Amino acid sequence: MEIPWEYRYAYRVKAMKSSFIREILKITQKPDVISFAGGLPAPTVFPVKEFQAAASHVLAESPEKALQYGTTEGYLPLREMIAERSARYGLNIGAANVSITSGSQQALDLIGRLFINRGDRVIVETPSYLGALQAWNAYGADYIPVPMDNEGMITSELEKALRKGAKFIYVLPNFQNPSGVTLSLKRRQELVRLADHYGTPIIEDDPYGQIRFEGEHLPPVAVVDSEYREENGNTYAGNVIYLSTFSKLLAPGIRIAWAIGDEKVISKLVQAKQGADLHTSSFNQMAVYEVSKNGFIDKHVEVIRATYKERRDAMLEAMEEFFPTEVSWTHPEGGMFLFATLPENLDTMALFDKAVEKKVAYVPGEVFHTDGSGGNTMRLNFSFSNPDTIREGIARLGKMLKEELYKK
Amino acid sequence: MEIPWEYRYAYRVKAMKSSFIREILKITQKPDVISFAGGLPAPTVFPVKEFQAAASHVLAESPEKALQYGTTEGYLPLREMIAERSARYGLNIGAANVSITSGSQQALDLIGRLFINRGDRVIVETPSYLGALQAWNAYGADYIPVPMDNEGMITSELEKALRKGAKFIYVLPNFQNPSGVTLSLKRRQELVRLADHYGTPIIEDDPYGQIRFEGEHLPPVAVVDSEYREENGNTYAGNVIYLSTFSKLLAPGIRIAWAIGDEKVISKLVQAKQGADLHTSSFNQMAVYEVSKNGFIDKHVEVIRATYKERRDAMLEAMEEFFPTEVSWTHPEGGMFLFATLPENLDTMALFDKAVEKKVAYVPGEVFHTDGSGGNTMRLNFSFSNPDTIREGIARLGKMLKEELYKK
Repeated sequence: MEIPWEYRYAYRVKAMKSSFIREILKITQKPDVISFAGGLPAPTVFPVKEFQAAASHVLAESPEKALQYGTTEGYLPLREMIAERSARYGLNIGAANVSITSGSQQALDLIGRLFINRGDRVIVETPSYLGALQAWNAYGADYIPVPMDNEGMITSELEKALRKGAKFIYVLPNFQNPSGVTLSLKRRQELVRLADHYGTPIIEDDPYGQIRFEGEHLPPVAVVDSEYREENGNTYAGNVIYLSTFSKLLAPGIRIAWAIGDEKVISKLVQAKQGADLHTSSFNQMAVYEVSKNGFIDKHVEVIRATYKERRDAMLEAMEEFFPTEVSWTHPEGGMFLFATLPENLDTMALFDKAVEKKVAYVPGEVFHTDGSGGNTMRLNFSFSNPDTIREGIARLGKMLKEELYKK
Repeated sequence: MEIPWEYRYAYRVKAMKSSFIREILKITQKPDVISFAGGLPAPTVFPVKEFQAAASHVLAESPEKALQYGTTEGYLPLREMIAERSARYGLNIGAANVSITSGSQQALDLIGRLFINRGDRVIVETPSYLGALQAWNAYGADYIPVPMDNEGMITSELEKALRKGAKFIYVLPNFQNPSGVTLSLKRRQELVRLADHYGTPIIEDDPYGQIRFEGEHLPPVAVVDSEYREENGNTYAGNVIYLSTFSKLLAPGIRIAWAIGDEKVISKLVQAKQGADLHTSSFNQMAVYEVSKNGFIDKHVEVIRATYKERRDAMLEAMEEFFPTEVSWTHPEGGMFLFATLPENLDTMALFDKAVEKKVAYVPGEVFHTDGSGGNTMRLNFSFSNPDTIREGIARLGKMLKEELYKK
């Protein structure tokens, strides 16, 4: 008999929508379309030479370790290096607080697995990162959206959300994907205080924290939390699970990221990871360690900052020049994305096909909103294209927007 | 306040037992213990030179692709190569039937995600692969165990199990982990017929299929199923999801495996994988493709077969010499494991510490049984240690067993 697959699927599959972003990315891979839709790092900043040297070194010196099964928590020297780098920012942790994950997406998935039963609530920024929403939809999460302004999540609205009861609060404090907004220090402190008061953990997703072009580095929420605890006589006992990745610092194709948290939580996360993929590639972890050690990342991040700043500037300048005055947008101090808001009568989902006709693409902002709002917003990526291409693409988009706006 | 993590965990975490195997592996990593407990390939057969050349080539020729984000389903040339190799065994499929996964463990996890709601039943061989049980425990699976003999799962017992209703049947047809037993052709045909009759999918996990030392290659269950369907006028419309991996053919540290199935199922699996880890390392997929193309695997597998056969022979001979006559064991025609059965009054879990005192380790067979049986069994790995070490380890184990057996 024919297998009735549909009938056999678990509720998770029924909850899975064919990802709109996936479809968008297919359309935008046409070679003549200038795509601001993806979230790709600039390949020109990949440290290719360093990876070549590292791969050679690892396979020459430790082939039996690099090609063999490894521990689920990850390669110890790499975890130690991550702990040391975190100490630099004020986080008093050791390797036992660190687990390697197969990209940050896996960390998000494992967090869903640890905390979310069907119908559990998760507090998210509005808008929020789509990959996290996709990961947690699979576990049946419900979302409590908290609005943002140009200082990030509006913490005075957070308390209302906390009162409804949530498994955790999810924030991207630096140059948020998709909005490009940074959570201010005052808001970080308020977030930590409220989360502590309600006993609600915080998931801090920080892929871009080091890619700041201007303004002052702000302490991660995990550090603000740790300081808050010390004032109250505790040593580090993480109310925060902190996530970051080598995808934006080195290269995403190697799939190496990490999670930091309380030892008890990390140990559960490692157990969950064991069932999910046993461990992350030994070879890749060792190669990343080789590339990163001796301070390479600190030098390399300067190259990334300079490159992305130039591209952000090109995008902001072109938007000033070509966008209708009715459109506003964020001015990110780092990262890879900015967010534009159109007049309310314009629908970026409906306009998407017109943009593609003009050979330019974006992500309709609606997909990042868990409350159905954001229909008049769009996310624009500035890290992938060079400044000339950015200028041309923004010109095309501005033309389309003006035609739409002034025909009415 | 202190975060009450325990309270916040989802049911999955509560179902997670700290893995006994993990603890065992820690104990057995002491340098003077001869461990038959792990499931590690012999590092002497890792194709190091070939990986060095492949890594160099990929980073020199396609760095922007190797280090960038990739598609969730995986690198197309690799998927095409897998489809072609599968055609050789009689499976009429294309790249759309193949998804790359981050090790077979991830495929097992994604299958749990696709099919298992809490309390759903899964039919498993007794004993069965622990990694699969761990993956599916997280989704709340219940198991219906079907006994095995030296021809594999006893299909006359399968029908009873099928009548109880199950989401799928899980089989490891070749040199099963942990038993070393191979499912006979007649049983494969019977399995396919019954699964078809009850409309129950089959998950075929085949990491070792090509590592056969003797006897005749048997068609994968997926091929038997495909032939059964053709006879009944269907083209391939997979009742079987077939899993295999490069971990045993090349090296596990690179974490590249694959799933083959009906296009509709593979497309859902890819959606689930997107939420789980976005994609598997582009660099590793491209390197594996470089190593594998032009028939390298076919030559290399001969080296693996010769090496493992010698080790299996060393283990079987030493067991004949040193084990008490009351113990029986399987004679695997391939793979990495054999399985020993002690007199019923001996408990391999209780004897484990004594074995470690004698500087030798195994896995107590009980952990592979979902029905609480197997207390007098043990799994022995023969792929990792060289023949002399195997002989010495089996001598130690035999001595311990004789002491236990004859003191009573």
